[in-house]
Amino acid sequence: MVSLKVVENPPREEWESLVERPSTDVTVFRENVVPIIDDVLKEGDAAVSRYTAEFDGIDMDPDEFRVSEDEIEKAYDLVDDDVLKALEISVERVREFHERAYPGVGKDSWSLCVNGAECGVLIRPVEKVACYVPGGRASYPSTAVMTVVPASVAGCDEVIVITPPSKDDPLLVPAETLVAADLSGADAVFRVGGVQAVAGVATGTETLPEVDKIVGPGNVYVTCAKLEVYARGLVDVDMPAGPSEVLVVADSSADPDELVLDIMAQAEHDPMSVSVLACSDGEVARETVRRLEKEVEDAPRAEVLRESLRNSLVVVFEDLDTCLEFANEFAPEHLHLYVDRPEELLKKVRSAGAVFLGGDTTVPFGDYVTGPNHVLPTGGLAKARGALSTLDFVKLIPFQRVEPEALDELARVVETLAEVEGLPNHARAVRVRRSRGEDDA
Amino acid sequence: MVSLKVVENPPREEWESLVERPSTDVTVFRENVVPIIDDVLKEGDAAVSRYTAEFDGIDMDPDEFRVSEDEIEKAYDLVDDDVLKALEISVERVREFHERAYPGVGKDSWSLCVNGAECGVLIRPVEKVACYVPGGRASYPSTAVMTVVPASVAGCDEVIVITPPSKDDPLLVPAETLVAADLSGADAVFRVGGVQAVAGVATGTETLPEVDKIVGPGNVYVTCAKLEVYARGLVDVDMPAGPSEVLVVADSSADPDELVLDIMAQAEHDPMSVSVLACSDGEVARETVRRLEKEVEDAPRAEVLRESLRNSLVVVFEDLDTCLEFANEFAPEHLHLYVDRPEELLKKVRSAGAVFLGGDTTVPFGDYVTGPNHVLPTGGLAKARGALSTLDFVKLIPFQRVEPEALDELARVVETLAEVEGLPNHARAVRVRRSRGEDDA
Repeated sequence: MVSLKVVENPPREEWESLVERPSTDVTVFRENVVPIIDDVLKEGDAAVSRYTAEFDGIDMDPDEFRVSEDEIEKAYDLVDDDVLKALEISVERVREFHERAYPGVGKDSWSLCVNGAECGVLIRPVEKVACYVPGGRASYPSTAVMTVVPASVAGCDEVIVITPPSKDDPLLVPAETLVAADLSGADAVFRVGGVQAVAGVATGTETLPEVDKIVGPGNVYVTCAKLEVYARGLVDVDMPAGPSEVLVVADSSADPDELVLDIMAQAEHDPMSVSVLACSDGEVARETVRRLEKEVEDAPRAEVLRESLRNSLVVVFEDLDTCLEFANEFAPEHLHLYVDRPEELLKKVRSAGAVFLGGDTTVPFGDYVTGPNHVLPTGGLAKARGALSTLDFVKLIPFQRVEPEALDELARVVETLAEVEGLPNHARAVRVRRSRGEDDA
Repeated sequence: MVSLKVVENPPREEWESLVERPSTDVTVFRENVVPIIDDVLKEGDAAVSRYTAEFDGIDMDPDEFRVSEDEIEKAYDLVDDDVLKALEISVERVREFHERAYPGVGKDSWSLCVNGAECGVLIRPVEKVACYVPGGRASYPSTAVMTVVPASVAGCDEVIVITPPSKDDPLLVPAETLVAADLSGADAVFRVGGVQAVAGVATGTETLPEVDKIVGPGNVYVTCAKLEVYARGLVDVDMPAGPSEVLVVADSSADPDELVLDIMAQAEHDPMSVSVLACSDGEVARETVRRLEKEVEDAPRAEVLRESLRNSLVVVFEDLDTCLEFANEFAPEHLHLYVDRPEELLKKVRSAGAVFLGGDTTVPFGDYVTGPNHVLPTGGLAKARGALSTLDFVKLIPFQRVEPEALDELARVVETLAEVEGLPNHARAVRVRRSRGEDDA
């Protein structure tokens, strides 16, 4: 029997504890993760093979890591027609969104002139990217789409997918994941996962390429490993992936039966998932709780639901504005505005990974097909960054040129400030340019 | 006596070892850093005070951490007129660049329509930001400018500066740093630094605000601490700061005397700084080395120069294109194109923190006054990201709304893919919307 926590009109000083998540600290997994990374850095492929045998139960020679072109062709045969069609629609829509939503990316450069120094910004794709796609017992083709497409749109030269192998699949990786990666524009798929794969592409092995950036969600060990290779200065990473979260803001227009499904759709991800309902209508909130407690018992994945609903929270406020303020404080991964006039609330959104407008637009639409990314900040990181985007796959490189007529004025500024900072050779380097200007004059 | 390493026409297979930096692994400092973080998380201000006494040699009550408005006014009196003027010019130019170079940031939102789902991206500033400004024996007002200005331009609500105190300053912080922070738009300056300050603002103490993101360079302990609080899920951070680097690409038009100063301006930062000259003219390269070896002996900061020039490298190639390919492989923090026609090479730049065009535009111009940021990726991270920018201070939050006419098609895609991924409640959540559409029809 599940019983949900319901809080009515909590005062501000209680919000901080209400928005707190179960721990997002992955440093506790370091003792497991560090020795694996060290081994891969030392031994390369041999260590990757050994840990793949140990954790995934599969003996593979390193030359089998990379999925061959024949196998990718075979994967298309193994995928049902309606799944292929669905993946094609998903890839097309996600690509269109990422092409149009981040203007400027993909262009060669910006340029502008500022007071005697010509300055601008080059936009250059990250060259080599690895996209981590979780796997093992489940199959996540949508994660291949959401990570490979923005890298491909940004113009990255080499986009590879790494994903754990499974004995249950004839190709050792779900055919759907292979097709999704291929449709999205991946250059290669390697059937290695876990810490050993992260370490492998961070440093490069005999068969795994060394990449410049690793993106995509994984379990706590994978997240810990990504942050570890980043802290060692080996490679860039996108962001940590914590348990999935939704916060639904609802008013009296919301249908409790649909709210029940929205919450269960979130809660079924895993036992750590977090679902929150912030409601301006006490009756809708209470009715949703009643139906949810009943529905859970017969729902698919009831066991996971029962576990994760322990992390759930229903909070009732007098008005929608307070609900939204609470949502901004929570900074949820997914923010669903299940209200009569969602556009009005949208303007007031300050912190969320992604926003879903209106009763129809339940979060699963965004997980697969509306177009925006589903790789999103969790655990409150949405206070600082939004969804994965093409901007995560480009470098913004400023350039600058001091024009002769500005040399003297700017050099004097540099000389003054370099002296304050105790950097005399900085001052000398500009002074010699200034005097040259004077010689010429 | 300094003697520089000169390599002529190294074959490709040697490049990997030539671009290798001294270690950028800050995890080795964890044993020092973690206990301090733990203490601050447990004890708050008391621990911050204790470690400030221990490391900075200053006893301060927590209510003295924050620099008062009176003290900021006093700082203006303590700063020389020409320094004030120079800071004003620097702030103005850096602000203008950051306002104009990243179009879109600062606007309320983008919106666009994609096939039956209305999608767009909200742009929202990060609300609370802490800018770390190094200090101690030296003074770095320029770092206050380079971190506070982009946060201010991005529209952050609360921008604070944290910087280590020093007994040598009447206000315990250099007056120039206080003035720079104030001119740049900082809301407050706290004279605490080191690991204890990073931990303090990551979690909040009785006097230090809890922030959403920490940016700015520090020593290895500060960098380690930033990555540690990030891995614990407490706060976002910008990027690790390693030793400063320059790579100068030069042709026969380059003046060896100026190259000597350009290299020394980089090398004087600290004993770990890295200077590289990639030259298409062997005689210019050799002449530069001869003069540099002689100049160093009498130059200011000769001791630091002698140390850091051990990390330097002079490499000669047949042509400029190969020099630039080498530069792209190196991915330097600062790339100076000291050549006759720098615009032609600029187009081929793929990886650098920032680029400086032509013989006049020596790197110190960008350190202080041209406009682009001087907080840049080091240690090869420029393969994955560019300079600090206003984009580091905003969240790109996608939003989406499924239109009624698209509900049926998109719901079927979700149902198909959710089934593949074993998420039946995802399918149910969209199916109920689809059937409602059918009921309405």
